[in-house]
Amino acid sequence: MKGPWVGIVGHRGYSGAELVRILARHRSVAPVLLEHRDDHFDPIAIRNGKSLPRFPCTADAVRREGIELVFLATPPDVSMELAPMMLDAGARIVDLSGAFRLRTPENYTAWYKAPHTQPALLAEAACGLPEFCRERIRGARLVSNPGCYPTAANLAIRPLVEAGVVDRAAGIVCDAKSGVSGAGRKPSLETSFCEVTENFSAYSILKHRHVPEVLEISGLAEREFSFTAQLLPLKRGILETIYFRAVGVESAANLIEIYEQRYAGEPFIRLYNPGHMPDLRGVCRTNFCDIGVTFDATTGRAVVVCAIDNLVKGAAGQAVQNMNLMLGYPETEGLL
Amino acid sequence: MKGPWVGIVGHRGYSGAELVRILARHRSVAPVLLEHRDDHFDPIAIRNGKSLPRFPCTADAVRREGIELVFLATPPDVSMELAPMMLDAGARIVDLSGAFRLRTPENYTAWYKAPHTQPALLAEAACGLPEFCRERIRGARLVSNPGCYPTAANLAIRPLVEAGVVDRAAGIVCDAKSGVSGAGRKPSLETSFCEVTENFSAYSILKHRHVPEVLEISGLAEREFSFTAQLLPLKRGILETIYFRAVGVESAANLIEIYEQRYAGEPFIRLYNPGHMPDLRGVCRTNFCDIGVTFDATTGRAVVVCAIDNLVKGAAGQAVQNMNLMLGYPETEGLL
Amino acid sequence: MKGPWVGIVGHRGYSGAELVRILARHRSVAPVLLEHRDDHFDPIAIRNGKSLPRFPCTADAVRREGIELVFLATPPDVSMELAPMMLDAGARIVDLSGAFRLRTPENYTAWYKAPHTQPALLAEAACGLPEFCRERIRGARLVSNPGCYPTAANLAIRPLVEAGVVDRAAGIVCDAKSGVSGAGRKPSLETSFCEVTENFSAYSILKHRHVPEVLEISGLAEREFSFTAQLLPLKRGILETIYFRAVGVESAANLIEIYEQRYAGEPFIRLYNPGHMPDLRGVCRTNFCDIGVTFDATTGRAVVVCAIDNLVKGAAGQAVQNMNLMLGYPETEGLL
Amino acid sequence: MKGPWVGIVGHRGYSGAELVRILARHRSVAPVLLEHRDDHFDPIAIRNGKSLPRFPCTADAVRREGIELVFLATPPDVSMELAPMMLDAGARIVDLSGAFRLRTPENYTAWYKAPHTQPALLAEAACGLPEFCRERIRGARLVSNPGCYPTAANLAIRPLVEAGVVDRAAGIVCDAKSGVSGAGRKPSLETSFCEVTENFSAYSILKHRHVPEVLEISGLAEREFSFTAQLLPLKRGILETIYFRAVGVESAANLIEIYEQRYAGEPFIRLYNPGHMPDLRGVCRTNFCDIGVTFDATTGRAVVVCAIDNLVKGAAGQAVQNMNLMLGYPETEGLL
Repeated sequence: MKGPWVGIVGHRGYSGAELVRILARHRSVAPVLLEHRDDHFDPIAIRNGKSLPRFPCTADAVRREGIELVFLATPPDVSMELAPMMLDAGARIVDLSGAFRLRTPENYTAWYKAPHTQPALLAEAACGLPEFCRERIRGARLVSNPGCYPTAANLAIRPLVEAGVVDRAAGIVCDAKSGVSGAGRKPSLETSFCEVTENFSAYSILKHRHVPEVLEISGLAEREFSFTAQLLPLKRGILETIYFRAVGVESAANLIEIYEQRYAGEPFIRLYNPGHMPDLRGVCRTNFCDIGVTFDATTGRAVVVCAIDNLVKGAAGQAVQNMNLMLGYPETEGLL
Repeated sequence: MKGPWVGIVGHRGYSGAELVRILARHRSVAPVLLEHRDDHFDPIAIRNGKSLPRFPCTADAVRREGIELVFLATPPDVSMELAPMMLDAGARIVDLSGAFRLRTPENYTAWYKAPHTQPALLAEAACGLPEFCRERIRGARLVSNPGCYPTAANLAIRPLVEAGVVDRAAGIVCDAKSGVSGAGRKPSLETSFCEVTENFSAYSILKHRHVPEVLEISGLAEREFSFTAQLLPLKRGILETIYFRAVGVESAANLIEIYEQRYAGEPFIRLYNPGHMPDLRGVCRTNFCDIGVTFDATTGRAVVVCAIDNLVKGAAGQAVQNMNLMLGYPETEGLL
Repeated sequence: MKGPWVGIVGHRGYSGAELVRILARHRSVAPVLLEHRDDHFDPIAIRNGKSLPRFPCTADAVRREGIELVFLATPPDVSMELAPMMLDAGARIVDLSGAFRLRTPENYTAWYKAPHTQPALLAEAACGLPEFCRERIRGARLVSNPGCYPTAANLAIRPLVEAGVVDRAAGIVCDAKSGVSGAGRKPSLETSFCEVTENFSAYSILKHRHVPEVLEISGLAEREFSFTAQLLPLKRGILETIYFRAVGVESAANLIEIYEQRYAGEPFIRLYNPGHMPDLRGVCRTNFCDIGVTFDATTGRAVVVCAIDNLVKGAAGQAVQNMNLMLGYPETEGLL
Repeated sequence: MKGPWVGIVGHRGYSGAELVRILARHRSVAPVLLEHRDDHFDPIAIRNGKSLPRFPCTADAVRREGIELVFLATPPDVSMELAPMMLDAGARIVDLSGAFRLRTPENYTAWYKAPHTQPALLAEAACGLPEFCRERIRGARLVSNPGCYPTAANLAIRPLVEAGVVDRAAGIVCDAKSGVSGAGRKPSLETSFCEVTENFSAYSILKHRHVPEVLEISGLAEREFSFTAQLLPLKRGILETIYFRAVGVESAANLIEIYEQRYAGEPFIRLYNPGHMPDLRGVCRTNFCDIGVTFDATTGRAVVVCAIDNLVKGAAGQAVQNMNLMLGYPETEGLL
């Protein structure tokens, strides 16, 4: 028999549905659905299909069923409402919203345009980027899964900043492109098929609320970092093209070596040989983060391309990776 | 009755087909198809449809039919073969290939990996970017239509360089995304449906052969310019996201003013109000180049977004714009 | 100077926007926008662009500006509200909604699940399918533009029924596929990008409210006609695959001849040679209806493929074709 | 440790790549790649990735490595060349090509326009549709995986024919739509991105070479069956809309009951409740065949919608299902 129950709140959204898909393959935990509020989206009406256990999303149900960990695939305000309740009921939490990503209530309010109602939990929350915060995640009660754009950006940028090879005076540009599922499942004109297909557009230029997450983790200052988010006419995947001037570097191989040293033994980082670059197809429906490098020795200009699936390494997959660390399972369980 | 015959070589390719579409609406010229070599693609088999006159692509046919101008929507080697022949036969030429875009045979050989067989014509050819070369185009025998990426890049960048608002030490980044029609109609694995759909990928990073065209016209040095070309899963459109540090500028409005002054009276440049940005849908199937600006006053970082249809302003539309100038028609004829 | 004003209500929807696009090329009429209710969709914010005159959508404005004809690209209930008001104000009407398509209020109520509030206008309205109702359209005050599916279905089926070549006991199957713009611009989960892309689905099987329109015009009985509507992952276009047993026919050429005789001189019907079939690309952004035929002489089974652009021949283009007839312009003006 | 080696020939094609993906999750067999001929497509160049063992595609390698079963994801002529060689070397075979699907060499020649070079193997081959041929598959040396269209068509149609509820005089229409991967990976104009995107087209109307497979298995006569194949602008999935007049049936539930009885215990058939219909999204990347029914009691007309993933249940998934039967593993191993 399978091990402990883990609960999913928000299973009708894209990240929540991806959690269901991933956890169905997990050998050690048994997923249950916690129905937070009435939802009018029909479940699929297959006559001879099977479905997961469902409970109301209450502290009582969590306590009664002995649910050990709850994934919150909910908007930030709902996460702030549910997190203390679930912790009180004895569950640990992986939150996929932006509620606990920034370090101070003030920063949260500046970027999310709302007060933070759980400052103590904000202070307590561990950043759920295993490649940089693995030990804190293991012991945390509340893990805040990073945003999809910052996951890719920090995995690509932080090793370069740590290694001191970035000409910070010239700055770093991160030109990011995302599939439409990053905007969630709630219908809107911006994500309607006819508005997105055959189109490509930029939004939140220089002002995306994922920017402060990159600054906090990468160590860059605001003036050193330019970021544009753009909408691709496809469902899933993020590709970021990152530009900088490299100092103290002679070849693309030098840059790859920096990543190889930093990410030795990491199960979900794949590096490309010089001359090859990642694309979205290579990472879609996987928890991998693929990184490739181009370098022009005569001018010192470098380009790093980094690709993830926004719903997997950028959301549900990384959340399960965090759960594996928190509950003591192999980090890759359910994810390969 | 319509005026002079103009010939189209390469009408089965995407740029050539777009020329046919545009010239069908032109009030003053009558298009004819010049069949260069046997082509096995069937024409559309409509029973009660009409079609254009067709002639073999020979000097004889051009002379006999009195064709005044020929569009070469052909590969560079074919353009180098046909251009002297057509000029001898009395036709003027708008060439849509890369054959006559760079200023020296050496530069051509470096980027196109082949000798240039018509150096005298290369020296004679006028650059077909009307916003910067209008007077030369009017009198030219041979106009070289710019590449699709450089058309957008130069229209966005050159006014900024001229105005001296770019911090050139920090450099300019141009992150370019193109629809698949930019790769032409010849089948290849890279442009197969199943390889492109649901995918996004970078290619020719820092080394695209459109780069020297940008350098020649914008006035930037190689070390000041980083360029990446990327393939969007859609048919037509180019969007370029351009990053730089602005000097001597206080607001996005300042940058827009630079464009407004430079492009006063230009029929095909559209500027967006600060806070709004172009997208592909706005330019597809038009000859417009749309430009928008974002500026962060606290850090001095600026982002310009520039969009064109690669088959129109990036190819066939601009070619007709050039033809209008050469033959003395209103510059916008057939293009609005 | 251009001739009479014609008004467009609903210009922010897809059919309305297509009307704007088509009428901008029309040589004889001047379009104006009639703003029916507050709409939060931003118009495109181009700084140096031009725009059409706008008036409130009132009888007063129509009378004062002398608007001769109004296009209602609105939902059925709004069309029923506006039609009598516009007629009183002296304008003629082309209605693109379903309000005036069925012949009786009872039939309307059965299929649209709402009472019909303008039965006298319903009785008066002319069916806007020029290939079958041209003379009535010319003199009508109120023309009801047919639905997109029925336009294609009736153009393909009625000549066959008239010619008596359909084995009606065996019935006709119409398997219809439409682009997403047929569902309108209002955001919904069903038309969200992530739900539609990489998907294909059937809806309203046998029960689509366009079915009675086909029955009324084609002359088929309900039991003789099976219809399924299906959603293609693309923006525009309808392709219908129609199956029947042919009687008294020996070849595909026989079937094509039936169409050729029925549609002799029709400017917007294109017939394909046997062995070739229409596709969506051939009709997109045109007012053409393309028809092709396959026939198996050994079994008597026939397949007709019929393609239109749902926003053009299926909506705005046909509406302008009707306007041309009503106002005495060449039927193809603005549409070729 | 994993059990027997199984070989994959044609791993660079779409079906072959899907075999690699599925077998990587299989608990009991170890896949190896058999390289048939030089192939210039680069493998993915990930620096720290892993890959499968590779051997030349020779009888010697199969014998030496003790490969128990070989999947031929190859064109029919290559399958006819390799099948006897692999059988001689001691391997059993699942062939995914059309080489062994029809029952007689004459029929093969009529539809595939080539002689059949292995008539003895053709006579021996078992049809690889487990829902109808399970016992023969278990003991077969050579299993011929059915075509993608016939897999869906036969699963939907044969139970109805067996139950005698089809009015065969009126005939059955099967309107089939497929994603582009069904055409294979070899570049062609027909499958180029720009030709397929925003398009939809019919091909091989009434004459598709998958038709005889449907006739052989369903029991229908040629004159009773109309089939059209159509190309969807997406990568994977087949949806077939099937029309007939039902006799002796009173409701959709009656039809569902026929399927429930026929498919009781089948692990990969899912039936939808009346009022709901399958779509492509529900089956993509799964081995399921989803079936739904609509019935109009007043006219007796019925519509069945059947969906599969052409690369899984229509190719690689069904091939692994067959392998599981042949090698004695649980039928669903690797497929849920």
